[in-house]
Amino acid sequence: MFPAKIYTERLHKAQELAAKRGISAVIVTPGPDFAYLTGSWMSSHERLSAVVIPATGTVCAVVPATDAFEVHYLSDWGVNVLGWTDGQDPHGLVLEQLSKHTAETGENQQDNSAIAVSSAMTADHLLRLQKLSGKLFVPANSVLAELFTVKDSAEIEQLDACARAIDAVHAQVPALLQPGSTENDVAEKLHELILKEHSSVDFVIVGSGPNGANPHHSHSDRVLEEGDVVVVDLGGTFGVGYHSDCTRTYIVGGRDKASPEVIAAYDVLYAAQLNARELASPGISAQAVDAAARSVIAEAGFGEYFTHRTGHGIGLSTHEEPFIMAGNSLELEENMAFSIEPGIYVPGKWGMRLEDIVVTTADGIRSLNQAPRELR
Amino acid sequence: MFPAKIYTERLHKAQELAAKRGISAVIVTPGPDFAYLTGSWMSSHERLSAVVIPATGTVCAVVPATDAFEVHYLSDWGVNVLGWTDGQDPHGLVLEQLSKHTAETGENQQDNSAIAVSSAMTADHLLRLQKLSGKLFVPANSVLAELFTVKDSAEIEQLDACARAIDAVHAQVPALLQPGSTENDVAEKLHELILKEHSSVDFVIVGSGPNGANPHHSHSDRVLEEGDVVVVDLGGTFGVGYHSDCTRTYIVGGRDKASPEVIAAYDVLYAAQLNARELASPGISAQAVDAAARSVIAEAGFGEYFTHRTGHGIGLSTHEEPFIMAGNSLELEENMAFSIEPGIYVPGKWGMRLEDIVVTTADGIRSLNQAPRELR
Repeated sequence: MFPAKIYTERLHKAQELAAKRGISAVIVTPGPDFAYLTGSWMSSHERLSAVVIPATGTVCAVVPATDAFEVHYLSDWGVNVLGWTDGQDPHGLVLEQLSKHTAETGENQQDNSAIAVSSAMTADHLLRLQKLSGKLFVPANSVLAELFTVKDSAEIEQLDACARAIDAVHAQVPALLQPGSTENDVAEKLHELILKEHSSVDFVIVGSGPNGANPHHSHSDRVLEEGDVVVVDLGGTFGVGYHSDCTRTYIVGGRDKASPEVIAAYDVLYAAQLNARELASPGISAQAVDAAARSVIAEAGFGEYFTHRTGHGIGLSTHEEPFIMAGNSLELEENMAFSIEPGIYVPGKWGMRLEDIVVTTADGIRSLNQAPRELR
Repeated sequence: MFPAKIYTERLHKAQELAAKRGISAVIVTPGPDFAYLTGSWMSSHERLSAVVIPATGTVCAVVPATDAFEVHYLSDWGVNVLGWTDGQDPHGLVLEQLSKHTAETGENQQDNSAIAVSSAMTADHLLRLQKLSGKLFVPANSVLAELFTVKDSAEIEQLDACARAIDAVHAQVPALLQPGSTENDVAEKLHELILKEHSSVDFVIVGSGPNGANPHHSHSDRVLEEGDVVVVDLGGTFGVGYHSDCTRTYIVGGRDKASPEVIAAYDVLYAAQLNARELASPGISAQAVDAAARSVIAEAGFGEYFTHRTGHGIGLSTHEEPFIMAGNSLELEENMAFSIEPGIYVPGKWGMRLEDIVVTTADGIRSLNQAPRELR
């Protein structure tokens, strides 16, 4: 966990933003948003746990009495921690806290202001709260976008450390890609290497030859051969819960063993990623960054082989706003963190992807990953 | 996976129930309900994957094009598998499928019938679908209760195998509870033993002495001493995704080392569980079963120390309906599967719990777990 002050300031900021947007309260259930605001990764299950953040007044946490020990420290921050026991109605309790508060502050109890809820809240809780409240529900990430999509310095420090951790793993990949090994063999060693640098493994993709053409391939018993193109995409969880995510493309036996066709395609991919990295900066839209990578690939005749968005935000979740894709007009701001990861996937032959996590600076981006970007 | 016929029948039954209840469609995102209906545990993430089950007409699956390979087999069952790519609007695509269908069947497109959604659907998808459709959303488990809470023979066979698997682990617990070992030492060995019998570990609770008084304790560096009361609650995932869950209470050094106070309390706990097992049968309400256990404990003066519900349903999720607790008037039917697990927790001293998974028969229940229930 970060020092308490970071969380109390975030809770305070959440209240300010709710008030500013005319939202009566933000209700957050366990998951990345909950961890962001409270520091706790308590598990989400069928028993309701929620932090209830009214636009003004006392923040409260409604949790099963048997789990209250996990968030007991919130009391020291002025949060009212309420434990409920089986047979009580926790959803009613949440709304009671809100209406009690409304009564206290003399606000109009018939107000039509919306309630914002965290992305990870599941339907079982959401539908019950919605039915009991009779209010309009909106996504918390639209109300609290400034908090969730712009990283503070403590977060960027964590993401920097994440990048160093996964770069250290990538440094060992070339030695693992030996002819005769299977993707599974390589993945097993990568699991161990990721765990040395992180608290847990999020994913390991070792896509060799035709398997690389499936962007969501994990790893298989396919045996590596000299000259194979191999997509290696690795991610883990680090520190207080931030994520690493970095892809490099390798050639079994080294770049000299690659076919001219592969080398030419990789040059296109490299140029596409560079074009996106050079464009990305505050004031540029997410979709423009996507187009910057996509146009280079399309002009080279590979357009149909770049089948996914160019990137995604990253933080306490692996994928979050800003999504770098067509249709997303969101303007980048300083200190947003996201991936730039164009790919080229030729079905039945090979795939390649080049991914860095970057953070927007005052006038551009800074790449957190420093693993070499050349085909090797 | 079970044979295809089991899933196609379930999908068909889901359509029948939706039609019967006046629901226009059931939308199910990845999780236990998705696995129940399709056999797939594809992962849920920010890109929408959903099975869309209209009350009449063709079932369709809307999934990211890059993940479509995971549910390709659904096409063979007559499900229309639609892949979408980044930049497209998958939520719009889901609703388009529904309205296209409504137009085809000549139904009134202005109808006010509700849409049912699975419990695991997250707010990011739910709020967007709700906003686009302008319809009332209801929980799928209320519409499809007969499917989700009444187990078929293939499911009961799996749950039986789960119980044998965890019983085999409990058989080895007494030998592990040696004075001088820590809870963590014991838990580490239990992890290995669970993995021998299951595909993954869900949880391991080793709550010795005062730690046992916290029903959600996991395990710690506390050193076991002769005479300690130890709550051991174990669960794993098995086969196509069913769960085991069984608690026994042990004494380090065996029953002879227990204090008279502990032995007397355990007799009460045993009688409470037996009372609930004897009452449970079709036609009896979930809350009556809870009361049957609770009343025995309360009469013995331990009422305040039984701080949780008596049980929960189990299947593809660890906790599901029927919840055996006060306020749940749901009537048990034949072939429901749930836990009966009263506990007594004396803060600062010890805890004890006795848990079996049972299935309702025509005139009572059958306990799937057969590990000895005596304190030992």
